[in-house]
Amino acid sequence: MRILITGGGGMLGQMLARSLIERGGLRFASAGSPMLREIVLLDQAFPQMPIDDARIRCVQGQVTDRPLIERTCAAGVDALFHLAAVVSAGAESDFELGMRVNVDGLRATLDACRALGSTPRIVFASSVAAFGGELPHVVLDTTAPTPQSSYGTQKVIGELLVADMTRKGFIDGRTLRLPTIVVRPGKPNLAASGFMSNILREPLAGEAAVCPVSADACMWILSPQRAIEALIHAMELPAELWGWNRTLNAPGITVSVRQALDALARVAGKEAAARVRFIPDPAIERIVLSWPARFEAERSGRLGFRADADIDDIIRAHLQLQQRAAH
Amino acid sequence: MRILITGGGGMLGQMLARSLIERGGLRFASAGSPMLREIVLLDQAFPQMPIDDARIRCVQGQVTDRPLIERTCAAGVDALFHLAAVVSAGAESDFELGMRVNVDGLRATLDACRALGSTPRIVFASSVAAFGGELPHVVLDTTAPTPQSSYGTQKVIGELLVADMTRKGFIDGRTLRLPTIVVRPGKPNLAASGFMSNILREPLAGEAAVCPVSADACMWILSPQRAIEALIHAMELPAELWGWNRTLNAPGITVSVRQALDALARVAGKEAAARVRFIPDPAIERIVLSWPARFEAERSGRLGFRADADIDDIIRAHLQLQQRAAH
Repeated sequence: MRILITGGGGMLGQMLARSLIERGGLRFASAGSPMLREIVLLDQAFPQMPIDDARIRCVQGQVTDRPLIERTCAAGVDALFHLAAVVSAGAESDFELGMRVNVDGLRATLDACRALGSTPRIVFASSVAAFGGELPHVVLDTTAPTPQSSYGTQKVIGELLVADMTRKGFIDGRTLRLPTIVVRPGKPNLAASGFMSNILREPLAGEAAVCPVSADACMWILSPQRAIEALIHAMELPAELWGWNRTLNAPGITVSVRQALDALARVAGKEAAARVRFIPDPAIERIVLSWPARFEAERSGRLGFRADADIDDIIRAHLQLQQRAAH
Repeated sequence: MRILITGGGGMLGQMLARSLIERGGLRFASAGSPMLREIVLLDQAFPQMPIDDARIRCVQGQVTDRPLIERTCAAGVDALFHLAAVVSAGAESDFELGMRVNVDGLRATLDACRALGSTPRIVFASSVAAFGGELPHVVLDTTAPTPQSSYGTQKVIGELLVADMTRKGFIDGRTLRLPTIVVRPGKPNLAASGFMSNILREPLAGEAAVCPVSADACMWILSPQRAIEALIHAMELPAELWGWNRTLNAPGITVSVRQALDALARVAGKEAAARVRFIPDPAIERIVLSWPARFEAERSGRLGFRADADIDDIIRAHLQLQQRAAH
């Protein structure tokens, strides 16, 4: 089995690769040989420490580089995780870049997979940014996507492409609309939603952090560990359980900034929570507040996807990950 | 005022151009000079008789030809009607062609309009093919688009682009999801929905016609006359009435094949209705039956869009159009 991860140099890509190595690959019936032969990580940069395993291969380049993508796929791909993306604030400030990477890059990757003629499984990471505007109080599985950011728009375009190419039999695609990932390890990225991780991760490491939105602001979140689980589960689920609707709101929990800071105080003490200062940033607020914070993710529960228990759990899982990384 | 109509050589494009000439252009406040200076029709072919007016200019070429689109827009565009499309059966049989024309062609046109820097008004013709799969009995304004054809997929991608570029202030875009247009004058086209026009138009002209779906099959339809009205109304409506949601289900009426043939018999006699033979075509049935036939188009009514009274009315309007064309 050969697995390709675009955006494989990023936080989720690296965690996913490690997890796949640990569990010895993916389990699904349609793959040629079940033995994990290779995990190819494609990204424009690999800032993190390389994963020490002979089956990992890093390919440095752009997801928009069609010849590169075609060469990378040519040896065969049983499963593709498409995580490569220009994130929310980046796609908002540079519309062309977002279209190029988030739309044309996905198209290049899907076309290369289609050209294999083997109908590879594909998991596409979409986002709650698919939703925006005047939304119902609780977003249902049937709620129409009405993105209010270029990132969200480009993700929904990707969902549509994955769904149609699946319907045509070119690929076997599955889209997960991921909640905001909290707590992101490592450094802050350009995502408008990054603050929710920052106000937990930085104080836990003894650093100060800035919260650009009010304490009442709520988010729909999922830990990186559960996100990795969800991506793998989406890939391993039989096609017939997905049925015709290949786009799924992933599970998550609703957490306000206040609840997050209260949990931080419970887990790490009041002095940790006191390291967060509130400095409103209207640009960030506008993007983040356009995303829904409450979902009834009924279908994802039925399909066996799991959310975190609560924000305290998410913080403890982050601390465990940090301790493990330190060894 | 300069108006551009892509797909201007097609049935709707030609009717729209004639209507705009008759009414002396468009009425909306943001246009530079209200005087109608030019209507540019862009299309790959102009099979119909040219419209005899000095203000009409025909440009022959592909909507995917970026330099051509840029040259065509360079003199300024106050209003663009984007009707150019590979239709349903065509986009289904040639996926790449559909993507190229329906997605990349729209992008080329929107980019050229954006480059003008004058935020031109744009009306994009989408379709009920935006909907499919497991739908509610009646489609509401809030129902999520889940297209089950490549044509529908490409139209929804277009809706998203128009909405996002409007939000960004690059254009002032408005999308109308048009019902199936019945009775289409002229020759049959590649649209999977064409039969509903064929089984009325051909018998009215004394010709035989084939119906590829059962008599119970229902469609959501609008006459070409009302469709032209709707396109113009969509363009003239002030931006603030559109608000943030730039995609609208146009009004229509639900008509079964049986009701259509009964009306044909009422208006033109039983011998006309007897000219229709039923020869099922599973490919056509699969596409057409995936489209919803019942809508509650509440918002379009509120915004002043109008449907036809009934199918008898639609047939009579077609006969009037034919008589007028014969003079």
